[in-house]
Amino acid sequence: MNYFSEKDIYDIVANVVAQSGLGKNKAAAPVCSDEGMEIPIEISARHVHLDRESLDILFGKDYKLTKKRDLSQTGQYLSEERVKLVTERGQIASVGILGPLRSKNQVELSFSDARILGVKAPIRLSGDLEGAADVLIVGPKGVVSAKGSVIVAKAHVHMTAADAEAYGVVDGEHVSISMGTDRKVTLNDVIIRVREDYVLAVHIDYDEANAANVNGGHIVGHLIKNR
Amino acid sequence: MNYFSEKDIYDIVANVVAQSGLGKNKAAAPVCSDEGMEIPIEISARHVHLDRESLDILFGKDYKLTKKRDLSQTGQYLSEERVKLVTERGQIASVGILGPLRSKNQVELSFSDARILGVKAPIRLSGDLEGAADVLIVGPKGVVSAKGSVIVAKAHVHMTAADAEAYGVVDGEHVSISMGTDRKVTLNDVIIRVREDYVLAVHIDYDEANAANVNGGHIVGHLIKNR
Repeated sequence: MNYFSEKDIYDIVANVVAQSGLGKNKAAAPVCSDEGMEIPIEISARHVHLDRESLDILFGKDYKLTKKRDLSQTGQYLSEERVKLVTERGQIASVGILGPLRSKNQVELSFSDARILGVKAPIRLSGDLEGAADVLIVGPKGVVSAKGSVIVAKAHVHMTAADAEAYGVVDGEHVSISMGTDRKVTLNDVIIRVREDYVLAVHIDYDEANAANVNGGHIVGHLIKNR
Repeated sequence: MNYFSEKDIYDIVANVVAQSGLGKNKAAAPVCSDEGMEIPIEISARHVHLDRESLDILFGKDYKLTKKRDLSQTGQYLSEERVKLVTERGQIASVGILGPLRSKNQVELSFSDARILGVKAPIRLSGDLEGAADVLIVGPKGVVSAKGSVIVAKAHVHMTAADAEAYGVVDGEHVSISMGTDRKVTLNDVIIRVREDYVLAVHIDYDEANAANVNGGHIVGHLIKNR
């Protein structure tokens, strides 16, 4: 017969709890009303993601971005460095660079921005650069011709699997997000994106934010399942 | 006993028809579907309305605007002349002037424009300048300090009483307008404005248009009565 110490019992229980998933990644049930389920909204300003080679050209060999502040999504940050976007039709100065570096350059604009530059950018989820437009990225040390890099971000929701369960939605589902301000707007085609390191938030751009007259701070919208 | 000529009969019948409203201002029933009732949408770019005194200062005494093209609303037109809007924070060049002249200056911007100028403009229906922001209007002959003139236009629907009857709405009613593009958006608080010289159209600004990815040309949206 085996005898167990208090420490043994504690370890066994801890192990069972850990394996059961109890108390781990358990999302709180969203606050519900007639308007839908409450969900935080964040506005993405225009920005660029750079690859290693482009950062070398724009800021110098082996340059390292300086973090200005963390963004809500784990590991993502806004850097102190800025670039200028240039086309033959126009330019936009002081555009933020998000870190960390990526395998491909990606420039995310609003349609208002795209009009200033005179580029025809498609609506895409981040990472999908099919049909993306061209732009020159200008830094203090050089210029990169970023072909096929410019998109207008499709509105999306970041959430974990536990969040998805709490909201009753699945990865890739198209939902509606309503913003109940003095300029009430509903975005009817917003994509759910599920990943374990995501932090719950709807991401919209400044055209969508302006149409709803929301800005900065902590905005709460409502998620409504599409029929 | 009185006898009536053919002409008398014709006149009597014409008079009865005229008074009954039969065949007059009878709007066609809107095309309906699950999405709502079809309705034309027009995008208003940033523009200014000027009073007589301001036009004198900006372009010279007794200056007369040159019509570039008629707008959809009866009597309204875009002029060839342009002005620049200036604040200490920014400026926007080549802003259109709508004719005819009005009793008060009114500058209609999008929130994107307001951000460029650094002004805090309220959402208002045209003509309501409560809390409107200040801006300098610069013309070839002078500068006008247009205090309390800058608003962001509240989305609205122009229609006649006959249209209102056909759509089952009344003047001042708040309805929803959906735009079924690849960036489907519903504006949930759009005001019905009824006047006999109005031409059926929803008027939205460029932030709302960009959020829905609609631009130029002939856009059809759907009107949905709010619950």
